[in-house]
Amino acid sequence: MSKKEKLSTEAYKGVRDFYPEDQAFFNYLVATCRDAVQRFGYVEYHASVLEPAELYKAKGAENEEMVNEQTYTFIDRGGREVTLRPEMTPTVARMVSGRRRELGFPLRLFSIPNVFRYERPQRGRLREHWQLNVDLFGSKSLASDAELMMVAHDLMFAFGAKSSDFVIKIGSRAFLDELALRHGLSPESSRALVALLDRRGKMPAEEFEVKLEVLGVPLSSISGNEEPEEVTQVLQLLEDVGVGNAHFDPSIVRGFNYYTGLVFEVYDTHPENNRALFGGGRYDNLTALFDDESISGVGFGMGDVTIRDFLAVRDLLPPYIPPTKVYLVVTDAELVPFALGIAHELRTGRVNTAVDFADRKLGDQIKAATKHKIPFVIVVGEDEQRSGEFKVRSLDTGKEVSLRRDELVGYFTTR
Amino acid sequence: MSKKEKLSTEAYKGVRDFYPEDQAFFNYLVATCRDAVQRFGYVEYHASVLEPAELYKAKGAENEEMVNEQTYTFIDRGGREVTLRPEMTPTVARMVSGRRRELGFPLRLFSIPNVFRYERPQRGRLREHWQLNVDLFGSKSLASDAELMMVAHDLMFAFGAKSSDFVIKIGSRAFLDELALRHGLSPESSRALVALLDRRGKMPAEEFEVKLEVLGVPLSSISGNEEPEEVTQVLQLLEDVGVGNAHFDPSIVRGFNYYTGLVFEVYDTHPENNRALFGGGRYDNLTALFDDESISGVGFGMGDVTIRDFLAVRDLLPPYIPPTKVYLVVTDAELVPFALGIAHELRTGRVNTAVDFADRKLGDQIKAATKHKIPFVIVVGEDEQRSGEFKVRSLDTGKEVSLRRDELVGYFTTR
Repeated sequence: MSKKEKLSTEAYKGVRDFYPEDQAFFNYLVATCRDAVQRFGYVEYHASVLEPAELYKAKGAENEEMVNEQTYTFIDRGGREVTLRPEMTPTVARMVSGRRRELGFPLRLFSIPNVFRYERPQRGRLREHWQLNVDLFGSKSLASDAELMMVAHDLMFAFGAKSSDFVIKIGSRAFLDELALRHGLSPESSRALVALLDRRGKMPAEEFEVKLEVLGVPLSSISGNEEPEEVTQVLQLLEDVGVGNAHFDPSIVRGFNYYTGLVFEVYDTHPENNRALFGGGRYDNLTALFDDESISGVGFGMGDVTIRDFLAVRDLLPPYIPPTKVYLVVTDAELVPFALGIAHELRTGRVNTAVDFADRKLGDQIKAATKHKIPFVIVVGEDEQRSGEFKVRSLDTGKEVSLRRDELVGYFTTR
Repeated sequence: MSKKEKLSTEAYKGVRDFYPEDQAFFNYLVATCRDAVQRFGYVEYHASVLEPAELYKAKGAENEEMVNEQTYTFIDRGGREVTLRPEMTPTVARMVSGRRRELGFPLRLFSIPNVFRYERPQRGRLREHWQLNVDLFGSKSLASDAELMMVAHDLMFAFGAKSSDFVIKIGSRAFLDELALRHGLSPESSRALVALLDRRGKMPAEEFEVKLEVLGVPLSSISGNEEPEEVTQVLQLLEDVGVGNAHFDPSIVRGFNYYTGLVFEVYDTHPENNRALFGGGRYDNLTALFDDESISGVGFGMGDVTIRDFLAVRDLLPPYIPPTKVYLVVTDAELVPFALGIAHELRTGRVNTAVDFADRKLGDQIKAATKHKIPFVIVVGEDEQRSGEFKVRSLDTGKEVSLRRDELVGYFTTR
């Protein structure tokens, strides 16, 4: 085959390959999220990336653009229309409705699924990312809204963030509805108001004011001075458990049109990265798609790329810890069976051990260990076989210690 | 909306929803696989389910049927042909080729991806399953073939299987090539021989013998008496580390046509379930799709459904352990802020705690805890608030203990 006929080693456009160090970070992300949300009693679920397309079409006219232009939707060989899920909330609503009799309420669920969006490649946006989803079903208590914010807060702390690194901004869809009613806004103007608030940060203050005036809403009414009673209550609950970095911000509305109550966003306070990291809110009508009896829900979603960027800027990314502790380099292929015996003893002692098969020179074998960032190397040669003494070299410090075969497991289990 | 207009809560045909107990088993599976393979120095990677369709088309004529009829392949909005990966090996070959300069060899990799096959629904087969993939790149040593079998063996033990529960059958593609050459088989007859051996267990012994004779191969030549030298060597290496349940079986050929050397299958020895659980082998030419310099590989894949069935039959499925330790039931909504304070203390002490928001009666709150299989319940009422004494009830035994607020964390951390 000529070079020209060779396949590309690139991943499909807009998706990522996770090489070992990327995957190690991903596993850290999953473990940290799990630990933080399970502390509040959330339980993990999962589902396939494939969903019937109708699940996203049903949500109403405003979502049609999303379904038609931003999802991966195709017809399967049986004529069914299938979508690669663009978000997890409709899936969890479907699952909860499906077993509403068996599941106990309030029901706390979380998942860390991959979700897909068809983004134009030139924008450099990803088409697939992973997203922690945390949802609480079956309670209309404001305490459940507050709980989700507590979870978000503790999650940030679990990643090593401090109170001053972020702020929780709370908005209210109910407050906006009331505002619209008070100013006599049509449903259309009301939606325009939500859209305008959603884009507030993306335009000059003057432009925002002018557009607000056109809608017939005075700036003062969304200044934040008029804090709704439910926000005050939530802020009190948060303060009681030491969450002090939250406040009311009427311009927080969130993009999805299924939110019906309080909404919130966790904002990065970094001067160069002053943006929403993630957020969520209350949705009351999603399970009504499946059943006449609706279940109230409150939840949030946090993307893996956004949080990774945050951690990178704050120097909070964890160091890579290789899973392998020891590498056996072998001076001669004939000694491989002997080396496998040593490796077997180490593994039986729960020491993660890789063996080189002496396909190449000793120096190249050590280079391989270095590339894999394995911390310790043991040379296995004829001398070692004869004497039963092994030199253990730390690749970090270059230091060597000499140990008897029966001392090896003990040495590594304390390191 | 009338009942008729409601959406179905069913998952897409042929895929599974993972409710909490299913997900708990899945997490056990992942943790067990990780631990077992990392012991041998394997490192985790991952990739998107989306791959360019050409990755599967390139493998040659025999795969065309698979690509055309058994994969999910569609055209994206940019006109690219995309496939939901039907297996992981082409992906890992792509990734290894893409960074061959940076990665050190021998390179040990594993992943637990979901893979998709378009199966006709009436057969009741799944269209998506998860599959542990373990691969070693860059060594032609027979010790690397042996290592993969050791990993498979230890993996079975990690799940609680005994030596007598399974057997490792080793076949050899090289042996078959030699056999074909010796009997003067055409390339076509040679492929027919592999296909026949692959289906040996699915036909009566007489039919198999007749078909073998038609190909011009005497039964005696595949009886297993003629053990190839390389199999003998591998069996010796296995025995050295205590793996005694392996043997040569010339009828083991594996379905995929990319295998070039030894192949193996882990067989269930259960009389009612005497079938292959999983397997793998050596492939020498896969990375040649991407690069002139080919890298030898050896690996295996194990599916989540097959192993689950095995564990169920052997009564080896782990019990469900709920992540939540304590449920606070609250007698009155006004006491919720007080309950949140107790919960906060427990959580700070690393005790996973869920709170009921007193939306329903006490009995219903306890029922919810029972449905979630949460082991302990604490009643939070006015008496408790006044006295600072709390009754902790075990839902397993029904026993109650009375504890002061400052004793709670200590009580649960030892349980």
